[in-house]
Amino acid sequence: MDSPWDELTLAFSRTSMFPFFDIAHYLVSVMALKRQPGAAAVARKNPFSSWFTAMLHCFGGGILSCVLLAEPPLRFLANNTNILLASSIWYITFFCPCDLVSQGYSFLPVQLLAAGMKEVTRTWKIVGGVKHANSYYKNSWIVMIAIGWARGAGGSIITNFEQLVKGGWKPEADEWLKMSYPAKVTLLGSVIFTFQHTKYLAVSRHNLMFLYTMFLVVTKITMMITETATTVLFAPLEDTLGRMLFGWQQQFSSCEKKSETKSSFNGTGSSTSKPIAVASDTVKKKHTKKTE
Amino acid sequence: MDSPWDELTLAFSRTSMFPFFDIAHYLVSVMALKRQPGAAAVARKNPFSSWFTAMLHCFGGGILSCVLLAEPPLRFLANNTNILLASSIWYITFFCPCDLVSQGYSFLPVQLLAAGMKEVTRTWKIVGGVKHANSYYKNSWIVMIAIGWARGAGGSIITNFEQLVKGGWKPEADEWLKMSYPAKVTLLGSVIFTFQHTKYLAVSRHNLMFLYTMFLVVTKITMMITETATTVLFAPLEDTLGRMLFGWQQQFSSCEKKSETKSSFNGTGSSTSKPIAVASDTVKKKHTKKTE
Amino acid sequence: MDSPWDELTLAFSRTSMFPFFDIAHYLVSVMALKRQPGAAAVARKNPFSSWFTAMLHCFGGGILSCVLLAEPPLRFLANNTNILLASSIWYITFFCPCDLVSQGYSFLPVQLLAAGMKEVTRTWKIVGGVKHANSYYKNSWIVMIAIGWARGAGGSIITNFEQLVKGGWKPEADEWLKMSYPAKVTLLGSVIFTFQHTKYLAVSRHNLMFLYTMFLVVTKITMMITETATTVLFAPLEDTLGRMLFGWQQQFSSCEKKSETKSSFNGTGSSTSKPIAVASDTVKKKHTKKTE
Repeated sequence: MDSPWDELTLAFSRTSMFPFFDIAHYLVSVMALKRQPGAAAVARKNPFSSWFTAMLHCFGGGILSCVLLAEPPLRFLANNTNILLASSIWYITFFCPCDLVSQGYSFLPVQLLAAGMKEVTRTWKIVGGVKHANSYYKNSWIVMIAIGWARGAGGSIITNFEQLVKGGWKPEADEWLKMSYPAKVTLLGSVIFTFQHTKYLAVSRHNLMFLYTMFLVVTKITMMITETATTVLFAPLEDTLGRMLFGWQQQFSSCEKKSETKSSFNGTGSSTSKPIAVASDTVKKKHTKKTE
Repeated sequence: MDSPWDELTLAFSRTSMFPFFDIAHYLVSVMALKRQPGAAAVARKNPFSSWFTAMLHCFGGGILSCVLLAEPPLRFLANNTNILLASSIWYITFFCPCDLVSQGYSFLPVQLLAAGMKEVTRTWKIVGGVKHANSYYKNSWIVMIAIGWARGAGGSIITNFEQLVKGGWKPEADEWLKMSYPAKVTLLGSVIFTFQHTKYLAVSRHNLMFLYTMFLVVTKITMMITETATTVLFAPLEDTLGRMLFGWQQQFSSCEKKSETKSSFNGTGSSTSKPIAVASDTVKKKHTKKTE
Repeated sequence: MDSPWDELTLAFSRTSMFPFFDIAHYLVSVMALKRQPGAAAVARKNPFSSWFTAMLHCFGGGILSCVLLAEPPLRFLANNTNILLASSIWYITFFCPCDLVSQGYSFLPVQLLAAGMKEVTRTWKIVGGVKHANSYYKNSWIVMIAIGWARGAGGSIITNFEQLVKGGWKPEADEWLKMSYPAKVTLLGSVIFTFQHTKYLAVSRHNLMFLYTMFLVVTKITMMITETATTVLFAPLEDTLGRMLFGWQQQFSSCEKKSETKSSFNGTGSSTSKPIAVASDTVKKKHTKKTE
């Protein structure tokens, strides 16, 4: 506890999110909304609808975790201060004369700072969600992971659902629940903090929070500067895991052929042999990508 | 308390909604459902679906407020008497021989009476919602306004959502959350009663209930008789408010031009200048409407 | 209590669903998912999405009843053992080498056994739902019927809703809430057990559970073997009930003609006369079906 490292991480883990980090989170969320095509026009014609969408973008993760735990989804409205803060940021972003906020935000260092600070709030949300779920269901680690994940990355699910209701989004069968980079990294964090909470991981929480936040901020900023595709980081891990769990059946090539020969007699045989072929295709594609 | 006016309003505010006003509300809701194209055919082919939709029309506001406060949405089913009443009205409306109920309802004075009585229930619902929200979240006026509003006008949101699920309604991006006249007047009432409840408005509740109900009934009946567009009443207020909040940026015409000249270089510039042009167009249209 | 029949039914009503009957239920649910076109391909490309859909298929009824009673929909995740069991069955069904599980399941006696055991779990779910609803709302028989029904047959509603979100299902206005055979038989069971619970039906619960389960299993297996359309059983009952409740207006043929003659003057007249004609057509069709 006396080492400077411990003091640093402990002080870091006690940082209050309230004004500055929350502002950064609201700013990044509202700017993401404003960049959607047509969002600025909607704000002029129907400000209430635009405000409602902005609130869903800002508080989506909290709302989703409330719904999953059967708590009032309106609870986020009970915090007057945060609502007023988010509303002010929505207002100055959409209605500032000369569009000053957007022009200031288009300056890269401002974006980097805001994005970095938003990633810090993600750690706090995951930890809060894991703790909160534990107070409901003692030692149910699946629920703890789910709630930590919903708090940290649930905003995108809520906003997708809102766009579905609005009619602005037509989902495709294989796009549903395809995880984005933030969803994956939040899932990873939620698993780590759940293991820490249930004492399977012998690390103190403030150290873990510091390390995970650093990881989040560094990868996010690296991605924004180098503009790399966000899938690079997890691709090898996923590839290995996917082949371990779902790809090992390919070696049974003997019954593959059997089912293919059977497929001329039997309809179900062909439907099972096809996906395996598709899977091996995608594995091949990933290999060629990596060798490029 | 001794003046005849006080006695009148106090007696009015103690009126029970139960049989007669509730019946009027169910009748107006079910008749609105029956006038939808295809509703009568659905009732013959699939009575359960029609009954379910009728219940959503009758109890929609209560269901929405239950969902928002994480109370069981089935709670409305626990009140056997009201369910049986609403079901009976649904039954006689759709299956009465010779369609007697519809023919009686097409008589204008009956419609006026039923519509007026339905507006009375709206006041009671708003007041109930505000009180109920206050018992959850002390002094959170945003939640109080939201619940009062949901109780009073939430039925239309629930039924829109149901039509979305059925596939009978294709929403357009700028139609979403565009408020109808009942939604606006309920929002106004919800704000007024919330201020009364939090003691910012020094009027006794029974006086306020009487005055607001009279306002609702008179405007509703005037609208039905004169068949005016329902937007006339709030248009000047909205116009002023809209220009105060969202239109004052137009005077900064200098940077408007700047961003237009910039728009040839920058894609985001054009997307921000267009909505302002749209907004000024709509303001112009409203002016021409009023001068007509 | 001493007769062998009572001993048998009492022992039957105390059977634990846990490992074997639950396994049968998960197996039937996951196999139903796998037979949907494209499901196997989705499982290869996006295993998380497939797993999530499988869990909705397995636990859909419980989730729906939780939503209706405002309990956490995540509660089903708190039962680690059942989740792991269902996940294992999902895994071996979709990723077993040589597709052994599907091939074993295509053997008819296995299907019959699994389907019969799944029907046994339905009785247990209905009884559990009725009891649970009674602990919330004393003597509210409508809520008890609704929750028993949701537990027993709610999975199909949840999965339909999921397909709607995914975009894989386009509902038609008159298909919505059209009840399938399991929905109807579960509604019947829910009504029976609610009457038993509220003492209107003087039969001991264990006898009723035994008889209802036998009825479920026998009809299900008969249907699977003879491959009859599932609507045969309830058609006469529904026909009688439908004519009693919704068809008796047809005898008033005098006002029918009146409204037809009026329809040349009045638009609403024609809209009411048409559905009655449609209804009488469907009644005719049913008659011809039965005489075939």
